[in-house]
Amino acid sequence: MSLTPGPVGRLIEELSRLPGIGPKTASRLTFYMLRAPEAQVIALADAIRGLRAGTVLCSTCFNIAEHDPCPVCADQERDRGLICVVEEPLDVLAIERTRRFRGVYHVLHGALSPVDGIGPDELKMRELVERVRSGGVREVLLATNPTMEGDATAMYLARQLAPTGIRVTRLAMGLPVGGDLEYADEVTLGEALEGRRDV
Amino acid sequence: MSLTPGPVGRLIEELSRLPGIGPKTASRLTFYMLRAPEAQVIALADAIRGLRAGTVLCSTCFNIAEHDPCPVCADQERDRGLICVVEEPLDVLAIERTRRFRGVYHVLHGALSPVDGIGPDELKMRELVERVRSGGVREVLLATNPTMEGDATAMYLARQLAPTGIRVTRLAMGLPVGGDLEYADEVTLGEALEGRRDV
Repeated sequence: MSLTPGPVGRLIEELSRLPGIGPKTASRLTFYMLRAPEAQVIALADAIRGLRAGTVLCSTCFNIAEHDPCPVCADQERDRGLICVVEEPLDVLAIERTRRFRGVYHVLHGALSPVDGIGPDELKMRELVERVRSGGVREVLLATNPTMEGDATAMYLARQLAPTGIRVTRLAMGLPVGGDLEYADEVTLGEALEGRRDV
Repeated sequence: MSLTPGPVGRLIEELSRLPGIGPKTASRLTFYMLRAPEAQVIALADAIRGLRAGTVLCSTCFNIAEHDPCPVCADQERDRGLICVVEEPLDVLAIERTRRFRGVYHVLHGALSPVDGIGPDELKMRELVERVRSGGVREVLLATNPTMEGDATAMYLARQLAPTGIRVTRLAMGLPVGGDLEYADEVTLGEALEGRRDV
Protein backbone atom coordinates (compact mmCIF):
# COMPACT_ATOMS: atom_id res chain seq x y z
CA MET A 1 0.00 0.00 0.00
CA SER A 2 1.43 3.33 -0.99
CA LEU A 3 1.17 6.10 1.54
CA THR A 4 2.70 8.67 -0.73
CA PRO A 5 0.01 9.29 -3.34
CA GLY A 6 1.13 9.58 -6.96
CA PRO A 7 1.45 13.37 -7.19
CA VAL A 8 3.05 13.57 -3.74
CA GLY A 9 5.58 10.82 -4.40
CA ARG A 10 6.35 12.33 -7.80
CA LEU A 11 7.18 15.74 -6.39
CA ILE A 12 9.26 14.26 -3.57
CA GLU A 13 11.21 12.33 -6.19
CA GLU A 14 11.78 15.35 -8.45
CA LEU A 15 12.81 17.56 -5.52
CA SER A 16 15.25 14.90 -4.29
CA ARG A 17 17.15 15.23 -7.56
CA LEU A 18 18.14 18.80 -6.70
CA PRO A 19 21.59 19.26 -5.14
CA GLY A 20 21.59 19.40 -1.36
CA ILE A 21 17.98 18.19 -1.14
CA GLY A 22 17.51 14.72 0.31
CA PRO A 23 14.30 12.71 0.73
CA LYS A 24 13.48 14.24 4.13
CA THR A 25 13.80 17.83 2.94
CA ALA A 26 11.93 16.91 -0.23
CA SER A 27 9.07 15.51 1.91
CA ARG A 28 8.98 18.61 4.09
CA LEU A 29 8.88 20.90 1.06
CA THR A 30 6.19 18.82 -0.62
CA PHE A 31 3.89 18.87 2.38
CA TYR A 32 4.54 22.58 2.80
CA MET A 33 3.44 23.13 -0.81
CA LEU A 34 0.31 21.07 -0.18
CA ARG A 35 -0.74 23.60 2.45
CA ALA A 36 0.65 26.82 1.00
CA PRO A 37 -1.66 29.23 -0.85
CA GLU A 38 -2.26 27.83 -4.33
CA ALA A 39 -1.11 31.10 -5.91
CA GLN A 40 2.31 30.73 -4.33
CA VAL A 41 2.71 27.15 -5.51
CA ILE A 42 1.65 28.01 -9.05
CA ALA A 43 4.02 30.99 -9.04
CA LEU A 44 6.89 28.66 -8.18
CA ALA A 45 5.97 26.20 -10.95
CA ASP A 46 5.73 29.08 -13.44
CA ALA A 47 9.06 30.55 -12.31
CA ILE A 48 10.75 27.19 -12.90
CA ARG A 49 9.12 26.81 -16.29
CA GLY A 50 10.01 30.34 -17.35
CA LEU A 51 13.63 30.02 -16.30
CA ARG A 52 15.14 28.77 -19.51
CA ALA A 53 12.69 30.48 -21.81
CA GLY A 54 13.61 33.87 -20.40
CA THR A 55 17.42 33.60 -20.24
CA VAL A 56 20.27 33.56 -22.73
CA LEU A 57 24.05 33.36 -22.60
CA CYS A 58 25.78 36.68 -23.23
CA SER A 59 27.75 36.07 -26.42
CA THR A 60 30.64 38.17 -25.12
CA CYS A 61 31.20 36.90 -21.57
CA PHE A 62 28.89 33.85 -21.47
CA ASN A 63 27.21 34.91 -18.26
CA ILE A 64 23.51 34.12 -17.96
CA ALA A 65 21.37 37.13 -18.77
CA GLU A 66 17.97 38.24 -19.94
CA HIS A 67 19.44 39.97 -22.98
CA ASP A 68 22.55 39.68 -25.14
CA PRO A 69 24.81 41.50 -24.34
CA CYS A 70 24.42 41.25 -20.56
CA PRO A 71 24.26 44.40 -18.36
CA VAL A 72 28.00 44.26 -17.53
CA CYS A 73 29.13 43.92 -21.16
CA ALA A 74 26.65 46.58 -22.23
CA ASP A 75 27.85 49.04 -19.58
CA GLN A 76 30.15 51.62 -21.22
CA GLU A 77 31.58 52.61 -17.83
CA ARG A 78 33.18 49.22 -17.25
CA ASP A 79 36.91 48.69 -17.82
CA ARG A 80 37.06 46.39 -20.84
CA GLY A 81 40.83 46.12 -20.54
CA LEU A 82 40.51 43.94 -17.46
CA ILE A 83 38.80 40.56 -17.86
CA CYS A 84 38.00 38.54 -14.74
CA VAL A 85 37.69 34.85 -15.61
CA VAL A 86 35.38 32.80 -13.36
CA GLU A 87 34.03 29.26 -13.30
CA GLU A 88 30.29 29.95 -12.82
CA PRO A 89 27.70 32.76 -13.05
CA LEU A 90 27.37 32.74 -9.25
CA ASP A 91 31.04 33.75 -9.04
CA VAL A 92 30.22 36.89 -11.02
CA LEU A 93 27.58 37.77 -8.45
CA ALA A 94 30.08 37.18 -5.63
CA ILE A 95 32.67 39.53 -7.11
CA GLU A 96 30.10 42.19 -7.99
CA ARG A 97 28.98 42.20 -4.36
CA THR A 98 32.46 43.38 -3.30
CA ARG A 99 31.81 46.56 -5.31
CA ARG A 100 35.56 46.65 -5.90
CA PHE A 101 35.75 45.38 -9.46
CA ARG A 102 35.11 47.63 -12.47
CA GLY A 103 36.34 45.31 -15.23
CA VAL A 104 34.38 42.79 -17.27
CA TYR A 105 33.94 39.03 -16.92
CA HIS A 106 34.34 35.76 -18.76
CA VAL A 107 32.40 32.74 -17.50
CA LEU A 108 33.97 29.35 -18.32
CA HIS A 109 30.94 27.34 -17.07
CA GLY A 110 33.09 24.90 -15.16
CA ALA A 111 36.70 23.95 -14.52
CA LEU A 112 39.06 21.42 -16.12
CA SER A 113 38.41 17.99 -14.67
CA PRO A 114 39.68 15.07 -16.76
CA VAL A 115 38.18 12.63 -14.28
CA ASP A 116 34.71 14.05 -15.11
CA GLY A 117 35.44 14.30 -18.81
CA ILE A 118 35.63 18.09 -18.73
CA GLY A 119 38.37 19.29 -21.05
CA PRO A 120 39.01 22.67 -22.70
CA ASP A 121 36.36 22.03 -25.36
CA GLU A 122 33.67 21.64 -22.72
CA LEU A 123 34.41 25.09 -21.31
CA LYS A 124 34.36 28.58 -22.86
CA MET A 125 38.16 28.65 -23.18
CA ARG A 126 38.65 29.13 -26.89
CA GLU A 127 36.26 32.07 -26.72
CA LEU A 128 38.39 33.66 -23.99
CA VAL A 129 41.61 33.41 -26.00
CA GLU A 130 39.86 34.86 -29.07
CA ARG A 131 38.52 37.69 -26.92
CA VAL A 132 42.02 38.53 -25.71
CA ARG A 133 43.51 38.27 -29.20
CA SER A 134 40.94 40.67 -30.66
CA GLY A 135 42.67 43.41 -28.67
CA GLY A 136 42.06 46.10 -26.06
CA VAL A 137 42.82 43.77 -23.13
CA ARG A 138 45.69 44.60 -20.77
CA GLU A 139 45.09 42.11 -17.94
CA VAL A 140 43.35 38.77 -17.46
CA LEU A 141 42.56 37.95 -13.83
CA LEU A 142 42.17 34.18 -13.45
CA ALA A 143 39.60 34.04 -10.66
CA THR A 144 38.86 30.33 -10.83
CA ASN A 145 38.47 28.65 -7.43
CA PRO A 146 41.65 28.01 -5.39
CA THR A 147 41.05 24.27 -5.72
CA MET A 148 42.87 21.55 -7.64
CA GLU A 149 40.56 21.91 -10.64
CA GLY A 150 40.50 25.70 -10.42
CA ASP A 151 44.30 25.87 -10.24
CA ALA A 152 44.70 23.46 -13.14
CA THR A 153 42.27 25.56 -15.17
CA ALA A 154 44.17 28.75 -14.32
CA MET A 155 47.54 27.24 -15.25
CA TYR A 156 46.18 25.93 -18.53
CA LEU A 157 44.75 29.33 -19.40
CA ALA A 158 47.98 31.08 -18.37
CA ARG A 159 49.89 28.92 -20.85
CA GLN A 160 47.31 29.54 -23.58
CA LEU A 161 47.55 33.30 -23.02
CA ALA A 162 51.35 33.49 -22.69
CA PRO A 163 51.93 34.16 -26.43
CA THR A 164 49.73 37.26 -26.24
CA GLY A 165 52.17 38.87 -23.79
CA ILE A 166 49.41 40.42 -21.67
CA ARG A 167 49.50 40.49 -17.89
CA VAL A 168 47.93 37.38 -16.26
CA THR A 169 47.03 37.48 -12.57
CA ARG A 170 45.41 35.23 -9.94
CA LEU A 171 43.40 36.17 -6.83
CA ALA A 172 45.48 36.32 -3.65
CA MET A 173 45.29 33.41 -1.24
CA GLY A 174 45.74 33.99 2.46
CA LEU A 175 43.97 34.51 5.75
CA PRO A 176 40.32 35.45 5.59
CA VAL A 177 39.62 38.87 7.11
CA GLY A 178 38.77 38.44 10.78
CA GLY A 179 40.52 35.09 10.82
CA ASP A 180 42.74 33.65 13.52
CA LEU A 181 46.19 32.18 12.81
CA GLU A 182 45.47 29.46 15.33
CA TYR A 183 42.59 28.07 13.27
CA ALA A 184 44.10 28.58 9.83
CA ASP A 185 44.97 25.38 7.96
CA GLU A 186 48.67 24.86 7.20
CA VAL A 187 48.35 25.13 3.44
CA THR A 188 46.52 28.45 3.57
CA LEU A 189 48.92 29.79 6.19
CA GLY A 190 51.81 28.71 3.95
CA GLU A 191 50.32 30.69 1.09
CA ALA A 192 49.81 33.68 3.39
CA LEU A 193 53.52 33.57 4.28
CA GLU A 194 54.63 33.28 0.64
CA GLY A 195 52.36 36.06 -0.51
CA ARG A 196 53.27 38.49 2.25
CA ARG A 197 52.99 42.14 1.28
CA ASP A 198 55.00 45.20 2.20
CA VAL A 199 53.33 47.44 4.74
CA MET B 1 22.07 47.38 -12.83
CA SER B 2 20.52 44.06 -12.11
CA LEU B 3 22.78 41.06 -12.30
CA THR B 4 19.99 38.62 -11.63
CA PRO B 5 17.92 38.67 -14.80
CA GLY B 6 14.17 38.69 -14.42
CA PRO B 7 13.48 34.95 -14.68
CA VAL B 8 16.51 34.12 -12.51
CA GLY B 9 15.65 36.64 -9.79
CA ARG B 10 12.03 35.52 -9.86
CA LEU B 11 12.87 31.87 -9.26
CA ILE B 12 15.37 32.73 -6.52
CA GLU B 13 12.64 34.77 -4.84
CA GLU B 14 10.01 32.02 -5.10
CA LEU B 15 12.42 29.34 -3.86
CA SER B 16 13.42 31.54 -0.91
CA ARG B 17 9.81 31.44 0.31
CA LEU B 18 10.08 27.70 0.95
CA PRO B 19 10.87 26.67 4.54
CA GLY B 20 14.55 26.02 5.20
CA ILE B 21 15.58 27.58 1.89
CA GLY B 22 17.45 30.87 2.15
CA PRO B 23 18.72 33.15 -0.62
CA LYS B 24 22.05 31.28 -0.98
CA THR B 25 20.43 27.86 -1.38
CA ALA B 26 17.81 29.39 -3.67
CA SER B 27 20.62 30.81 -5.86
CA ARG B 28 22.42 27.49 -5.98
CA LEU B 29 19.25 25.64 -6.92
CA THR B 30 18.36 28.20 -9.58
CA PHE B 31 21.75 28.01 -11.27
CA TYR B 32 21.60 24.22 -11.07
CA MET B 33 18.26 24.27 -12.86
CA LEU B 34 19.70 26.58 -15.53
CA ARG B 35 22.21 23.86 -16.41
CA ALA B 36 20.17 20.71 -15.75
CA PRO B 37 18.55 18.84 -18.67
CA GLU B 38 15.44 20.73 -19.70
CA ALA B 39 13.31 17.59 -19.31
CA GLN B 40 14.22 17.37 -15.62
CA VAL B 41 13.38 21.01 -14.98
CA ILE B 42 10.04 20.75 -16.77
CA ALA B 43 9.26 17.54 -14.86
CA LEU B 44 9.78 19.42 -11.59
CA ALA B 45 7.54 22.30 -12.67
CA ASP B 46 4.84 19.83 -13.74
CA ALA B 47 5.13 17.87 -10.49
CA ILE B 48 4.58 21.08 -8.50
CA ARG B 49 1.66 22.08 -10.67
CA GLY B 50 0.05 18.65 -10.46
CA LEU B 51 0.39 18.44 -6.70
CA ARG B 52 -2.90 19.96 -5.64
CA ALA B 53 -4.84 18.86 -8.69
CA GLY B 54 -4.05 15.21 -7.93
CA THR B 55 -4.61 15.09 -4.18
CA VAL B 56 -7.61 15.21 -1.84
CA LEU B 57 -8.19 15.02 1.90
CA CYS B 58 -9.53 11.67 3.06
CA SER B 59 -12.97 12.52 4.48
CA THR B 60 -12.52 9.99 7.29
CA CYS B 61 -9.02 10.67 8.64
CA PHE B 62 -8.11 13.89 6.78
CA ASN B 63 -4.79 12.55 5.58
CA ILE B 64 -3.66 13.66 2.12
CA ALA B 65 -4.38 11.00 -0.49
CA GLU B 66 -5.00 10.42 -4.14
CA HIS B 67 -8.46 9.02 -3.47
CA ASP B 68 -11.14 9.30 -0.80
CA PRO B 69 -11.04 7.16 1.34
CA CYS B 70 -7.25 6.91 1.67
CA PRO B 71 -5.46 3.51 1.52
CA VAL B 72 -5.39 3.15 5.33
CA CYS B 73 -9.07 3.91 5.83
CA ALA B 74 -9.97 1.68 2.88
CA ASP B 75 -7.91 -1.24 4.24
CA GLN B 76 -10.30 -3.75 5.87
CA GLU B 77 -7.40 -5.38 7.76
CA ARG B 78 -6.74 -2.25 9.83
CA ASP B 79 -7.95 -2.02 13.45
CA ARG B 80 -10.64 0.66 13.33
CA GLY B 81 -11.04 0.49 17.11
CA LEU B 82 -7.71 2.26 17.61
CA ILE B 83 -7.36 5.81 16.27
CA CYS B 84 -3.91 7.43 16.31
CA VAL B 85 -4.25 11.22 16.30
CA VAL B 86 -1.36 13.14 14.70
CA GLU B 87 -0.61 16.74 13.82
CA GLU B 88 0.51 16.36 10.20
CA PRO B 89 0.45 13.89 7.26
CA LEU B 90 4.22 13.39 7.64
CA ASP B 91 3.58 12.01 11.13
CA VAL B 92 1.42 9.29 9.59
CA LEU B 93 4.35 8.32 7.37
CA ALA B 94 6.66 8.24 10.38
CA ILE B 95 4.42 5.90 12.36
CA GLU B 96 3.75 3.65 9.37
CA ARG B 97 7.50 3.23 8.92
CA THR B 98 7.70 1.57 12.37
CA ARG B 99 5.50 -1.22 11.00
CA ARG B 100 4.18 -1.57 14.53
CA PHE B 101 0.82 0.15 14.23
CA ARG B 102 -2.27 -1.57 12.78
CA GLY B 103 -4.88 1.00 13.77
CA VAL B 104 -6.19 3.96 11.80
CA TYR B 105 -5.32 7.66 11.89
CA HIS B 106 -6.77 11.10 12.35
CA VAL B 107 -4.80 14.09 11.05
CA LEU B 108 -5.48 17.38 12.83
CA HIS B 109 -3.43 19.47 10.36
CA GLY B 110 -1.69 21.40 13.11
CA ALA B 111 -1.65 21.90 16.86
CA LEU B 112 -3.36 24.39 19.18
CA SER B 113 -1.40 27.63 19.22
CA PRO B 114 -3.33 30.67 20.44
CA VAL B 115 -0.30 32.87 19.71
CA ASP B 116 -0.61 31.92 16.02
CA GLY B 117 -4.39 32.13 16.04
CA ILE B 118 -4.81 28.36 15.77
CA GLY B 119 -7.76 27.24 17.88
CA PRO B 120 -9.92 24.11 17.81
CA ASP B 121 -11.90 25.38 14.82
CA GLU B 122 -8.74 25.64 12.70
CA LEU B 123 -7.98 21.95 13.27
CA LYS B 124 -9.88 18.75 12.51
CA MET B 125 -10.94 18.36 16.16
CA ARG B 126 -14.72 18.38 15.92
CA GLU B 127 -14.44 15.70 13.26
CA LEU B 128 -12.40 13.52 15.62
CA VAL B 129 -14.95 13.74 18.43
CA GLU B 130 -17.78 12.92 15.98
CA ARG B 131 -15.77 9.96 14.72
CA VAL B 132 -15.37 8.61 18.26
CA ARG B 133 -19.04 9.23 19.12
CA SER B 134 -20.23 7.32 16.03
CA GLY B 135 -18.98 4.15 17.76
CA GLY B 136 -16.65 1.20 17.31
CA VAL B 137 -13.67 3.01 18.86
CA ARG B 138 -12.05 1.59 22.01
CA GLU B 139 -8.84 3.70 22.22
CA VAL B 140 -7.62 7.07 21.01
CA LEU B 141 -3.84 7.44 20.99
CA LEU B 142 -2.95 11.13 21.14
CA ALA B 143 0.31 11.13 19.14
CA THR B 144 0.71 14.88 18.86
CA ASN B 145 4.32 16.10 19.27
CA PRO B 146 5.76 16.12 22.83
CA THR B 147 6.02 19.90 22.65
CA MET B 148 4.11 22.67 24.40
CA GLU B 149 1.61 22.99 21.57
CA GLY B 150 1.38 19.22 21.10
CA ASP B 151 0.79 18.66 24.81
CA ALA B 152 -1.82 21.42 24.97
CA THR B 153 -3.58 19.86 22.00
CA ALA B 154 -3.50 16.42 23.61
CA MET B 155 -4.88 17.71 26.91
CA TYR B 156 -7.65 19.61 25.16
CA LEU B 157 -8.64 16.52 23.18
CA ALA B 158 -8.48 14.34 26.31
CA ARG B 159 -10.99 16.64 27.99
CA GLN B 160 -13.23 16.66 24.90
CA LEU B 161 -13.18 12.86 24.78
CA ALA B 162 -13.65 12.26 28.54
CA PRO B 163 -17.48 12.08 28.35
CA THR B 164 -17.24 9.19 25.86
CA GLY B 165 -15.52 7.03 28.48
CA ILE B 166 -13.09 5.48 25.97
CA ARG B 167 -9.44 4.88 26.75
CA VAL B 168 -7.19 7.83 25.89
CA THR B 169 -3.43 7.30 25.66
CA ARG B 170 -0.28 9.29 24.80
CA LEU B 171 3.01 8.12 23.29
CA ALA B 172 5.70 7.32 25.88
CA MET B 173 8.42 9.85 26.47
CA GLY B 174 11.89 8.71 27.51
CA LEU B 175 15.36 7.88 26.29
CA PRO B 176 15.80 7.34 22.56
CA VAL B 177 16.96 3.81 21.74
CA GLY B 178 20.77 3.78 21.62
CA GLY B 179 20.87 6.91 23.76
CA ASP B 180 23.26 7.73 26.56
CA LEU B 181 22.10 8.93 29.99
CA GLU B 182 25.03 11.36 30.06
CA TYR B 183 23.74 13.30 27.08
CA ALA B 184 20.04 13.13 27.85
CA ASP B 185 18.46 16.46 28.77
CA GLU B 186 17.05 16.73 32.28
CA VAL B 187 13.43 17.03 31.27
CA THR B 188 13.51 13.91 29.12
CA LEU B 189 15.43 12.01 31.76
CA GLY B 190 12.84 13.10 34.32
CA GLU B 191 10.08 11.71 32.11
CA ALA B 192 12.04 8.48 31.68
CA LEU B 193 12.19 8.12 35.47
CA GLU B 194 8.48 8.82 35.94
CA GLY B 195 7.44 6.46 33.18
CA ARG B 196 9.68 3.59 34.26
CA ARG B 197 8.33 0.16 33.37
CA ASP B 198 8.46 -3.18 35.13
CA VAL B 199 10.97 -5.61 33.71
